[in-house]
Amino acid sequence: MSKYLINRYKTLEVYVPGEQPKDMEYVKLNTNESPFPPSKGVLDRISSEEVSRLNLYPDPECKKLKQKLAELYNFNTENIFISNGSDEILSFSFMAFCSEEVGAVFPNISYGFYKVYGDLYDVDYKEMPLKKDFTIDINDYLNVGKTVVIANPNAPTGLSLSVDDIEKIVISNPENVVLIDEAYVDFGGNSCVELVRKYDNLLVVRTYSKSRSMAGARLGYAIGSKQLIEDLNRIKYSTNPYNINRLTLAAGEAAIDDNDYYMSCCNEIVKIREYSKKKLSDLGFEYLDSDTNFIFAKSSIIRGEEYYQKLKQNGVLVRHFSSPLISDYVRITIGTKEQMDMLFDITEKILQEVSL
Amino acid sequence: MSKYLINRYKTLEVYVPGEQPKDMEYVKLNTNESPFPPSKGVLDRISSEEVSRLNLYPDPECKKLKQKLAELYNFNTENIFISNGSDEILSFSFMAFCSEEVGAVFPNISYGFYKVYGDLYDVDYKEMPLKKDFTIDINDYLNVGKTVVIANPNAPTGLSLSVDDIEKIVISNPENVVLIDEAYVDFGGNSCVELVRKYDNLLVVRTYSKSRSMAGARLGYAIGSKQLIEDLNRIKYSTNPYNINRLTLAAGEAAIDDNDYYMSCCNEIVKIREYSKKKLSDLGFEYLDSDTNFIFAKSSIIRGEEYYQKLKQNGVLVRHFSSPLISDYVRITIGTKEQMDMLFDITEKILQEVSL
Repeated sequence: MSKYLINRYKTLEVYVPGEQPKDMEYVKLNTNESPFPPSKGVLDRISSEEVSRLNLYPDPECKKLKQKLAELYNFNTENIFISNGSDEILSFSFMAFCSEEVGAVFPNISYGFYKVYGDLYDVDYKEMPLKKDFTIDINDYLNVGKTVVIANPNAPTGLSLSVDDIEKIVISNPENVVLIDEAYVDFGGNSCVELVRKYDNLLVVRTYSKSRSMAGARLGYAIGSKQLIEDLNRIKYSTNPYNINRLTLAAGEAAIDDNDYYMSCCNEIVKIREYSKKKLSDLGFEYLDSDTNFIFAKSSIIRGEEYYQKLKQNGVLVRHFSSPLISDYVRITIGTKEQMDMLFDITEKILQEVSL
Repeated sequence: MSKYLINRYKTLEVYVPGEQPKDMEYVKLNTNESPFPPSKGVLDRISSEEVSRLNLYPDPECKKLKQKLAELYNFNTENIFISNGSDEILSFSFMAFCSEEVGAVFPNISYGFYKVYGDLYDVDYKEMPLKKDFTIDINDYLNVGKTVVIANPNAPTGLSLSVDDIEKIVISNPENVVLIDEAYVDFGGNSCVELVRKYDNLLVVRTYSKSRSMAGARLGYAIGSKQLIEDLNRIKYSTNPYNINRLTLAAGEAAIDDNDYYMSCCNEIVKIREYSKKKLSDLGFEYLDSDTNFIFAKSSIIRGEEYYQKLKQNGVLVRHFSSPLISDYVRITIGTKEQMDMLFDITEKILQEVSL
């Protein structure tokens, strides 16, 4: 830290992304990436001709991509916001809709970045405890009079709320924005995007990072009322108008045309997830009933941190969170069947060693 | 605007990027892009294989690109910060180093975004008037006790300060950051990057958008003391850790290997600029003695706005600023010789019409 950093950021606790060690080739099951590559249409679209135009600025309005997304969801382009990964939408939303006066609420076990944004933007936020079974108690979010932020399905639990429950939350907080982060919804969750047609205070956030195999391209989008999207644009045009590069825009457009491919990848991941649940049961693990591309699981034989460490020594990365509430668990991304079988073989070996 | 937007942003005046009209094919001389494509190494690097890995997150530390830039400038990687276009560094720097208490100073005629960031982050900023000849009076920046932000060369004037002048400013403000925005320095300005070895309070900001033909890739970098770079990382890891996508990182690495190509493009642009100055003189224009890839020029025959409009009607875009201090001028980006000749032919026609 320099002596020049202004005071308010000196004690900031930053977000720590999943590790990306380079000392060996790992089976990466730690950052919820898709194990499948982008579609052929995306590969074809990023041609030499496309790359040769990189001397020109991208379209700051992202018109073509907005048009594609608007058609896909049957909304107008004025209901769509495009961002450099969905983290950027979350950041802009905390800026635009939260403050010391306008507080925020979100679950105490959820995407770790919500708390970071809360601290960064001096938001008076409250973390609502999950129930003992790790589900969200929707009563905590009814009539709260603060901005509501919920990941649905939630991470790292993988558990979903119903659209009816989301609607109750949206209706009961008419003076506040309800942000539903649907990063993982394509793997079996319940999208509330249709509610945007009825409620001006609902913002639904999506990403290309998981179900569209493009974590490396950095592309997120939000669907909301014209006015909420205008607010996000106001923040964008005050920070970084050219926030999306040309190649990511092109890839994002091409991916929509190949929607069937991505939905079949999701189906495949769901199949491997259900297979993995069975394998984990056989190995004596408990897990939450995930609607996502990861499983939150714990063993009665080995503690979460030790299991994570031993997997890493054996070339498999999963994610472990040190928070005492969930430190027994690891979050395992669903990879290919081959990757999962490797995980299970190594796990069997680890459990045998530990049991000796 | 929605009723949910928090009060502090309700009156924000956002940045307006140069127009990108799509109604016809324009000769684009309005956003200071390079007329030359990226190098062959960049085209080769963005292969299908590279694109097929987009399912994986990029390296949030941008290690390889930092290594390349560190070698190019003979610094350590800890002195390099990478960003989603240099606008993002400016935004992060205003966040990190400016506030209501720690004010900022910058020229009243300069990159329009400084003022936007000042407003966005509630900074107590002061705009220092340029001298009558549009040069910066360095006395305005000595011992100011505020964060100093100067584009060198300045835009839209194209005029440079010497490294000695920059050093005086840096020395006289030891308790504040001095940010030098060198977006246009490769076209003949004086880089102060070597001063970073001596002064902990100097941050030099660069971009791939102009001299490296990659406005479409969104890539900027800063060079500064380890501590200043740590501060910028603190903001990055609190807002958007994966701020640079994989393809832009790859393109940025490949471009460094092709440095000679880009420097020869710069030389070519400088040649066309000097040719253009002569042509503008012949057409009766006055202009400032640009060190950049644009010329700030005015005619005694036609007002800036009218000239801009008539050029647009004839298929040529230049940039006009409505601020009364500079409304007589237009900013003309240096394109290819063919593009410039087209501009001059049309200008001659316009001037004849106006003189009738």
